[in-house]
Amino acid sequence: MEIDVPVVNLPRVVIIGGGFAGVRLAKQLRGKFQVVLIDKNNYHTFQPLLYQVATAGIEPDSIAFPLRKMFKEYEHFHFRMATAEDVIPGENILRTSIGEIKYDYLVIATGSDTNYFGMEKLQQNSMPMKSVSEALDLRSCILQNFEKALTVRDLKERVRLMTFVIAGGGPTGVELAGALGELKKHVLPQDYPELDFRRMQIHLIEGAERVLATMDEESSEASCKFLKELEVHVWTKTRVTGYDGKTVTTDKEEKFETATLIWAAGVKGNKLPGLDPQAVRKDGRIVVDEFCRVKNSENIFAIGDVACMITESTPNGHPMVAQVAIQMGARLSSNLRQMEKKRTMQPFRYKDKGSMATIGRNRAVAEVGKWKSQGWFAWLMWLAVHLISLVGFRNRVVVFFTWFVNYLKYDYGIRLIIRPFIPKPQQLHKEEQKQEHGVHQ
Amino acid sequence: MEIDVPVVNLPRVVIIGGGFAGVRLAKQLRGKFQVVLIDKNNYHTFQPLLYQVATAGIEPDSIAFPLRKMFKEYEHFHFRMATAEDVIPGENILRTSIGEIKYDYLVIATGSDTNYFGMEKLQQNSMPMKSVSEALDLRSCILQNFEKALTVRDLKERVRLMTFVIAGGGPTGVELAGALGELKKHVLPQDYPELDFRRMQIHLIEGAERVLATMDEESSEASCKFLKELEVHVWTKTRVTGYDGKTVTTDKEEKFETATLIWAAGVKGNKLPGLDPQAVRKDGRIVVDEFCRVKNSENIFAIGDVACMITESTPNGHPMVAQVAIQMGARLSSNLRQMEKKRTMQPFRYKDKGSMATIGRNRAVAEVGKWKSQGWFAWLMWLAVHLISLVGFRNRVVVFFTWFVNYLKYDYGIRLIIRPFIPKPQQLHKEEQKQEHGVHQ
Repeated sequence: MEIDVPVVNLPRVVIIGGGFAGVRLAKQLRGKFQVVLIDKNNYHTFQPLLYQVATAGIEPDSIAFPLRKMFKEYEHFHFRMATAEDVIPGENILRTSIGEIKYDYLVIATGSDTNYFGMEKLQQNSMPMKSVSEALDLRSCILQNFEKALTVRDLKERVRLMTFVIAGGGPTGVELAGALGELKKHVLPQDYPELDFRRMQIHLIEGAERVLATMDEESSEASCKFLKELEVHVWTKTRVTGYDGKTVTTDKEEKFETATLIWAAGVKGNKLPGLDPQAVRKDGRIVVDEFCRVKNSENIFAIGDVACMITESTPNGHPMVAQVAIQMGARLSSNLRQMEKKRTMQPFRYKDKGSMATIGRNRAVAEVGKWKSQGWFAWLMWLAVHLISLVGFRNRVVVFFTWFVNYLKYDYGIRLIIRPFIPKPQQLHKEEQKQEHGVHQ
Repeated sequence: MEIDVPVVNLPRVVIIGGGFAGVRLAKQLRGKFQVVLIDKNNYHTFQPLLYQVATAGIEPDSIAFPLRKMFKEYEHFHFRMATAEDVIPGENILRTSIGEIKYDYLVIATGSDTNYFGMEKLQQNSMPMKSVSEALDLRSCILQNFEKALTVRDLKERVRLMTFVIAGGGPTGVELAGALGELKKHVLPQDYPELDFRRMQIHLIEGAERVLATMDEESSEASCKFLKELEVHVWTKTRVTGYDGKTVTTDKEEKFETATLIWAAGVKGNKLPGLDPQAVRKDGRIVVDEFCRVKNSENIFAIGDVACMITESTPNGHPMVAQVAIQMGARLSSNLRQMEKKRTMQPFRYKDKGSMATIGRNRAVAEVGKWKSQGWFAWLMWLAVHLISLVGFRNRVVVFFTWFVNYLKYDYGIRLIIRPFIPKPQQLHKEEQKQEHGVHQ
């Protein structure tokens, strides 16, 4: 079956993925192209704040924005909620879960997903945090651990429930560890006066020599200091090798007894079957030229996390961050316009606008070019940048107000265990009876 | 195993349920009693606004408030997230999913759940709306129907997806129908310009002679008029008799082809096994005397929706509304204090503070004693009463602001399909593959 989109006298661009790259591209193609945007969710996710959803700081609805609403005034724009299945390059056809569609240009902006590097047992037992659903599950999991800790008589088991291990010391891992540190310091002891919070441990494990390895050493050191102030234990040059649901093993002698391993130690590209195998790397990322065109193809492009543009300065592609995705989307939109006019395209050049990470209240690290800042001012900058970047006026106001209240009251208000976890296949049977009322014990 | 709660020199009140009744009671027992509150969720739900969560008007986090946060400054208060299993009155023991607990006084405030009157097929196929999870599922279901409608070629099937039948013309049904009418009028046509919204139908089906049967006739008539203005079709004196997932049958000749039946036509008490069978009615409600004491028991009480106090003026118990629950909680708290002092208890007398229902923008019906109002002023009153009643300063501000933006922009912003439905047991297998990424097609 074909997806029912009107045929108009404009070239049709089919974009897979409504993340930072896909949304920017779709917006800038307005007028000169027919745009069909496909996403498995009906909303755009502001990923940089997912960790705050996971730690009860803000509600999920403020960092998700309905895609239809975003484009409601756009002509020749069509959104379809569907999963891309595969592409037939020879026929210019994309097949999806709701039917196939012809394209003039296909743009793959499917982003990245958690990479467990083939460790199946670890995957089954650990918590990822790459989507709104996963962040909500993590929030429920963290809170349920403390509810369980209250009912457990065995001290070892209680400590295990109160121990959190985060694998991966990139921005996600560092920000998550900082937020957990704040929960430990200010919020959870009030909720659970019967628990001894000296028992709560937060471990951040990083394989490289330092956390925030993509930033300057000065920033790494500062963030380590901030984490220490929040009683987060940082283990560098240590790699997690396995987790059976009880014990985290590493490539060192260190082991960690924990009920919760949060996996932020790797990402991979979201594959799209049907592309020339030479264009797809082992890690799922798609090799593109400097115009974001997929290797060995004419009219298929990839942008954002999934695109791997290998140049002299980027032997492994660009960093998988929002800024690259947005700039690729913008560049590709002007290049497509150029192509239509038979003019020369401009190669993509990444303009690094800097990077930042926040570690709890009043503390952040920021780098813009050679300028660096650590502490309170960087934190204010972090707040401002993230508020401005949020989509939607209501979301900005609500997040600002929520942060303001959290700050004044030393309290993260959204401590709700709302839903059962998404049951993993092997758990489904056990869950059957319990699910009736939406409660997960 | 016993639930680990410290033994202190105070009488212990175990309350099952953190709804309006249980929370009010727990608050007013402060100081003179040890209170153990048990709930299957870790939050209190502001049920009167659930319908707005279901219709994308407000986000769920604003109408749910963490119970631990609510009571964090209370001494001798203990919350446990657990499901009550049964009571052994002879031994003063309550058994729960996390162990048993001794009580001096037991208070059953378990509220009510959807009543399908034994219609199993209807239960399997229809959507209830009694909890935050259920309201979120309904929101996803409504939006997904429109996403599906876009992909369906068969006109009959498309119309079925765009038709919504609500069974039950009480406040819940009326408010839900009004909100759906607003979605049809202002919001959805912008999101789905490719669909013809003359095809969207909303039917409200009520068995009694008029909707809002507990209110004055004047209010019923006005609400019918308001519903008609929002293109909601009202069918009174009609009872839904079955639903197979495609066709709603009634006791009249009328049938309705729909993909969505929302069931708001009946509630029943949430049972607690172990009580004297004579004290439990067929509809699950517990028979209590005028002190809210359960029939044939000494120290077990029931308050709120689950309590059925039969008096001359209330042959079927009081209406199952928040006001009764709150007032019962308050009365019981003073009576327990009286009991401890060996003084006489005061019988419960319900003071009706009035009732109201809103039907879309600018329209509501309200009754306070003999005073009645329909339209804009009643709507303002409705807004004020509900804002004031919300728990938590942040929630009040966020809901107020969200309503304000929705009102100005004719837009309900929270149109997110965030989670898969809670899979019903028979669906679990089919869901297995799809659940991996938290997407429900």
